[in-house]
Amino acid sequence: MGLIVQKFGGTSVKDAERIFNVARIVTDTYAQGNNVVVVVSAQGDTTDDLIEKAKEINPNASEREMDVLLSTGEQISISLLAMAIDKLGFPVKSLTGWQAGFLTDSSHTRARIRRINKERLENELSKRNIVIVAGFQGINRYDDITTLGRGGSDTSAVALAAALHADNCQIYTDVDGVYTADPRLVPNAKKLDEITYDEMLELATLGANVLHNRSVEMGKKYSVPMEVLSSLERKPGTQIKEVIKVEKMLIKGVARDNDVARVSIVGVPDTPGIAFKVFSQLAAKKINVDIILQSIGRDGTKDISFTVSRSHKDLAMEVLGDIKENLNAHDVVCDDNISKVSVVGAGMQTNPGVASKMFEALADAGVNIQMISTSEIKISVLIDLKDSEKALNAIHDAFINED
Amino acid sequence: MGLIVQKFGGTSVKDAERIFNVARIVTDTYAQGNNVVVVVSAQGDTTDDLIEKAKEINPNASEREMDVLLSTGEQISISLLAMAIDKLGFPVKSLTGWQAGFLTDSSHTRARIRRINKERLENELSKRNIVIVAGFQGINRYDDITTLGRGGSDTSAVALAAALHADNCQIYTDVDGVYTADPRLVPNAKKLDEITYDEMLELATLGANVLHNRSVEMGKKYSVPMEVLSSLERKPGTQIKEVIKVEKMLIKGVARDNDVARVSIVGVPDTPGIAFKVFSQLAAKKINVDIILQSIGRDGTKDISFTVSRSHKDLAMEVLGDIKENLNAHDVVCDDNISKVSVVGAGMQTNPGVASKMFEALADAGVNIQMISTSEIKISVLIDLKDSEKALNAIHDAFINED
Repeated sequence: MGLIVQKFGGTSVKDAERIFNVARIVTDTYAQGNNVVVVVSAQGDTTDDLIEKAKEINPNASEREMDVLLSTGEQISISLLAMAIDKLGFPVKSLTGWQAGFLTDSSHTRARIRRINKERLENELSKRNIVIVAGFQGINRYDDITTLGRGGSDTSAVALAAALHADNCQIYTDVDGVYTADPRLVPNAKKLDEITYDEMLELATLGANVLHNRSVEMGKKYSVPMEVLSSLERKPGTQIKEVIKVEKMLIKGVARDNDVARVSIVGVPDTPGIAFKVFSQLAAKKINVDIILQSIGRDGTKDISFTVSRSHKDLAMEVLGDIKENLNAHDVVCDDNISKVSVVGAGMQTNPGVASKMFEALADAGVNIQMISTSEIKISVLIDLKDSEKALNAIHDAFINED
Repeated sequence: MGLIVQKFGGTSVKDAERIFNVARIVTDTYAQGNNVVVVVSAQGDTTDDLIEKAKEINPNASEREMDVLLSTGEQISISLLAMAIDKLGFPVKSLTGWQAGFLTDSSHTRARIRRINKERLENELSKRNIVIVAGFQGINRYDDITTLGRGGSDTSAVALAAALHADNCQIYTDVDGVYTADPRLVPNAKKLDEITYDEMLELATLGANVLHNRSVEMGKKYSVPMEVLSSLERKPGTQIKEVIKVEKMLIKGVARDNDVARVSIVGVPDTPGIAFKVFSQLAAKKINVDIILQSIGRDGTKDISFTVSRSHKDLAMEVLGDIKENLNAHDVVCDDNISKVSVVGAGMQTNPGVASKMFEALADAGVNIQMISTSEIKISVLIDLKDSEKALNAIHDAFINED
């Protein structure tokens, strides 16, 4: 008994059969006495089809109009799911983003949720209606339609759960939980029963592809109990919460991210203010920088290296090209033939053995390490792209399958 | 210079090429110094495709959810047209029904427009933006999405023109104006330069298929100057207005309607209250009755015949079956193998020659008349379906091509 928010992605509602599968999960939860709010994404390839239509007309379509166009995808899903639930004999109402009260900022195609006006939602819930909400969308202060960008539907679900003080926010996917590594890459990967927000955040950021980090950040901020589970198998998934049972397993997961490029500025003068100049220029162009490494100064010069997503590589090189002379840099170089592999687990910092164990596993597998970055709960290494899977399995076997 | 409302139907925006054709018409009008508000329908077969999706899930889908689903069709069109206009270098904003301020009653799938909140529209026009509005849709007082049903986009356009006091409401279609008869059926049909609202109303109702009568009714009510013209040829169409130049041509057009079924109650007692009993029951089931004829009482009984659209035939027969015994009727019969052919023109009533000329033309063509109905500006006859085209051409030749 309680209020459950359930989120289903595009593949979960891709056709009539899958829609009825979702409808049964939802109505079973409702029949157990819960209030249920459901967030859905656009069906299967709908978004891609709409983008294709737009490109045919105008490859540089305005972001405002792209949002008007793309938000129809979820609107189609909510009505179809409501029809299926109605067919099963349960009371249901679908709500678009603006109807559900999603107010965002004005950054079209990547808007941030500012507030949720709960009136309509609470009104429908008080009538014991199942409420289906279009994920990924809202409106700004001018009543223009906005979309939330990547991971938007997950974020919609967690935001709803936070606003409504839901007892659980269930994110249904095509996997049955969070694994110690991507099971498609690491055959020995194990499912986790629980994981903390921070650990999940590192895994999401590192390319575990289960949840988008925006949604986990929001879950952590508002302490929303979350669960990742499969829409095809009826069994418990992985719970994400603040504090979890102390477990034997220190390392929660191993992840790799191939969407990464390394950019280096070689031979800049070893004087104060250089890093500021570089990264303020990158920030001005809204380039997200991940790992940053600066070499120790030698002969009066130093090197600065950082990683960005591949789509930002060219823009980053352009920015550095512009300031290269100004910085008196020797050269600017770039490499996107790399992969980032990481281990994640709370308490890592107080266990110095983790890093050496990881490096040992890589050495045994003959993998060369290009860069190393550590945080409280994570150790990442940058390696050659071709070694990616080998490294992933070597590290996974060393930590997860050690006993 | 002025404010022009332009409406384009689904075939006019069915693909990228046609969308750019529309964009050029719009931007040419704008470039002449006009403010332009454009109303568009869903692309080509989009609505049918969406209905198909719904049927697969739930053949008895709720009307509320059908409206959520179908309204996405126009939303796709407005964004694509806005992208095309943007590409041509003109300032443009798309607005969905609710963004454009369309407030309707709560009759889902056949809502009536109650009011248009002009604020947003006027704000965009004051910035000299071309405004693209999704036709066919609005919201009710609960912020639920509604659609206007058949002819909805025409009605949206005329309502906008009325609310904004537009100088002209141009309805673009795939024909270049209103003809004296359907050119596909009557090769000698002639295009009209002008027609009154009333005449257009009779022609629309009678199946001329150019404009839906709801839009013409609204045009007449608010004296909106309308024009029907082709989106493919750049030439003047047919203007629809209150008073037009006196012309030699008395008869404005000849139309036929095959979507008609005749229902008869045979041998009911010739006592008061019978007609009331019959038509109040039909009205309770929302069956629209067109022509009504009652035979003169004889031997204490009379016959009542009326026509309904074919889709209402079975329901009408059911209603009459239920009350047949109560009415003491001899029999209830039905025939949908019929066609209604009509001549339309102002001043017909003061020209008794019109009716006889029409009947003469039908007699010469060997067409038997089953029922006759007349109004101030119209004479309709019910004939055998197989004689439909023959009758249409015979009447057209007698009136329009007389000189």
